[in-house]
Amino acid sequence: MNDSDAYTRGKAMAEATNPGIEDALAVRYDAILPGFSSSMMEVAFGHYYTREGLDDKTRYLATVAALAALGGQTGPQLKVHIKNALRSGASQREVAEVINQMALYGGFPAMINALNAAIEVFEAEAAA
Amino acid sequence: MNDSDAYTRGKAMAEATNPGIEDALAVRYDAILPGFSSSMMEVAFGHYYTREGLDDKTRYLATVAALAALGGQTGPQLKVHIKNALRSGASQREVAEVINQMALYGGFPAMINALNAAIEVFEAEAAA
Amino acid sequence: MNDSDAYTRGKAMAEATNPGIEDALAVRYDAILPGFSSSMMEVAFGHYYTREGLDDKTRYLATVAALAALGGQTGPQLKVHIKNALRSGASQREVAEVINQMALYGGFPAMINALNAAIEVFEAEAAA
Amino acid sequence: MNDSDAYTRGKAMAEATNPGIEDALAVRYDAILPGFSSSMMEVAFGHYYTREGLDDKTRYLATVAALAALGGQTGPQLKVHIKNALRSGASQREVAEVINQMALYGGFPAMINALNAAIEVFEAEAAA
Amino acid sequence: MNDSDAYTRGKAMAEATNPGIEDALAVRYDAILPGFSSSMMEVAFGHYYTREGLDDKTRYLATVAALAALGGQTGPQLKVHIKNALRSGASQREVAEVINQMALYGGFPAMINALNAAIEVFEAEAAA
Amino acid sequence: MNDSDAYTRGKAMAEATNPGIEDALAVRYDAILPGFSSSMMEVAFGHYYTREGLDDKTRYLATVAALAALGGQTGPQLKVHIKNALRSGASQREVAEVINQMALYGGFPAMINALNAAIEVFEAEAAA
Repeated sequence: MNDSDAYTRGKAMAEATNPGIEDALAVRYDAILPGFSSSMMEVAFGHYYTREGLDDKTRYLATVAALAALGGQTGPQLKVHIKNALRSGASQREVAEVINQMALYGGFPAMINALNAAIEVFEAEAAA
Repeated sequence: MNDSDAYTRGKAMAEATNPGIEDALAVRYDAILPGFSSSMMEVAFGHYYTREGLDDKTRYLATVAALAALGGQTGPQLKVHIKNALRSGASQREVAEVINQMALYGGFPAMINALNAAIEVFEAEAAA
Repeated sequence: MNDSDAYTRGKAMAEATNPGIEDALAVRYDAILPGFSSSMMEVAFGHYYTREGLDDKTRYLATVAALAALGGQTGPQLKVHIKNALRSGASQREVAEVINQMALYGGFPAMINALNAAIEVFEAEAAA
Repeated sequence: MNDSDAYTRGKAMAEATNPGIEDALAVRYDAILPGFSSSMMEVAFGHYYTREGLDDKTRYLATVAALAALGGQTGPQLKVHIKNALRSGASQREVAEVINQMALYGGFPAMINALNAAIEVFEAEAAA
Repeated sequence: MNDSDAYTRGKAMAEATNPGIEDALAVRYDAILPGFSSSMMEVAFGHYYTREGLDDKTRYLATVAALAALGGQTGPQLKVHIKNALRSGASQREVAEVINQMALYGGFPAMINALNAAIEVFEAEAAA
Repeated sequence: MNDSDAYTRGKAMAEATNPGIEDALAVRYDAILPGFSSSMMEVAFGHYYTREGLDDKTRYLATVAALAALGGQTGPQLKVHIKNALRSGASQREVAEVINQMALYGGFPAMINALNAAIEVFEAEAAA
């Protein structure tokens, strides 16, 4: 089955949360990787983020969990998804509890580093 | 602050989900690591699994996410937490969707291996 | 830009190397993850394996390198791509040299484990 | 068995090496994670760092080894434990030899990055 | 400086702990990787295991720590180094304590899996 | 077999690509790790980078693949090998395509972080 709606669906969600994102990706990456920006819309957003079967809040908290456990090198992306989780209805407490739990799977340093990333997001949102 | 309830709270939850678990751990590990079994009750269960602030279903789905992204070496533990997630009210669909999302963070091989572990759990539960 | 050819292109390549693969994936996964099998055709094969700009032999050797460095949990997938590399014109020597190089990045245990996986593939192909 | 001494024991060791650490953790984390600071005293210090059966120097060198092999995202924690190892009687040579050995398990980049972290610690201690 | 003794030194240590090891490696790997077996003698043993500056017991306990924290895919190598540690004077208690400490850095599943590998070694040694 | 040419061969290649590298390593590391600098020449360059059986361009692209998949903590080394790949005849497109492929094995955050490292190298080379 050909899912020709994946791009359309993904593009809509991406732009709703990050206006201008496809163009920004195109400017930065499409010269060295033709079609990269639209591929991101179709793949990451169309085939993953807009799937049904899981509510957004749980989807983003699961993402925060994985990125926290995987360790500090995913810092930029972790902060994006902490914001997505908050926007989807998760409380700061819930985000922190998910990260705290990751001490058991990714180790305590990974957990502390992720908690520090969360605090940066919380403080930025408070200042906004 | 001394949390003297951590052991009691953790022991209660552990035994409720896994009757006899502390004794089983003691028999296997306490000879080479004195106090290991009660430490597991107090630390893993008392300080982490029984924390408030996050519902069980989300806690276990976040754990499934992290273990899936971290890759196949956590296979035994992943299956335990898939069962915990189902028992906490997650549907098989929700468990699968969380694992599927992990393709983006832990790679497609890790995701497929975790999906296969989930299918083993689902089939065992159907046969039970 | 909507890449409506991704599914078609991916499906063609997947079936050429693995006849019946989409149906096999559908039977195993689509019940718990609707659309999973066609998504794999479109995403993994359409958006990644059939991209231009890199010859197949180098693409598969790069994949073997990454899976070797990441460690033994990607064993099943590593063997698939070792076969793909051989089929694309890489010699057994080239596959082994790539894996050997990974000792420097993924450690010696990961390298030895991947070398052992390669030997299994080489022996199976010799016996075929 | 309830280990009600874990908090007391852990708190004593933590404060001896890091005066004021529990309060510092409380100020930073307890608002978003109630009880986090005392949990760290009880769990990390009480249940792990103050265990008997292994001398401090070996315990900290083992920790340095693991953090070095796991890679650069644990940088802040690695430096803490390098200092702990030196304070426990390890020489700079022994710390460096342990890190060097990790090239075989975590790869050469991880080893070099950890060696650079060690040099930072050595230079800071020399300047103090 | 050319370290022409590395091979000689490494070969001597390898054969002392594993008689016939270079020939075994040659038979298995040298056909697909010319010189692999002697390279292992020179590099792993000559440049790493026979370095001065760190006693064997600490060197092997550090190795056990790293392999435990890195997770189950290094299982075969972990058991080899647990044996090396015991042979160098570490007690079973010390080996277990080092592995237990790794819960804080590699997570609890990695720690439990490594503890199980240690128990296999201890039981095999008891049966021998 | 004693490979007494490893140091000579490695030293020659290292100095050709990085004039003065052995002395720079000696100044930084040999005080805390005697013989470290010559060991790097002999091991990394002599036993790995100068091996026959794989052309340089493929060797360096495989290295880029592994370092990209392993994640951002190997950033400094990744940039070195991107430059090595370009110098060996790889195009910027080929480097980018290899990194892009790694989304499937190391996850999308690792891939994006590696792509950003590549862009830094490309821009620096354009400005030179």
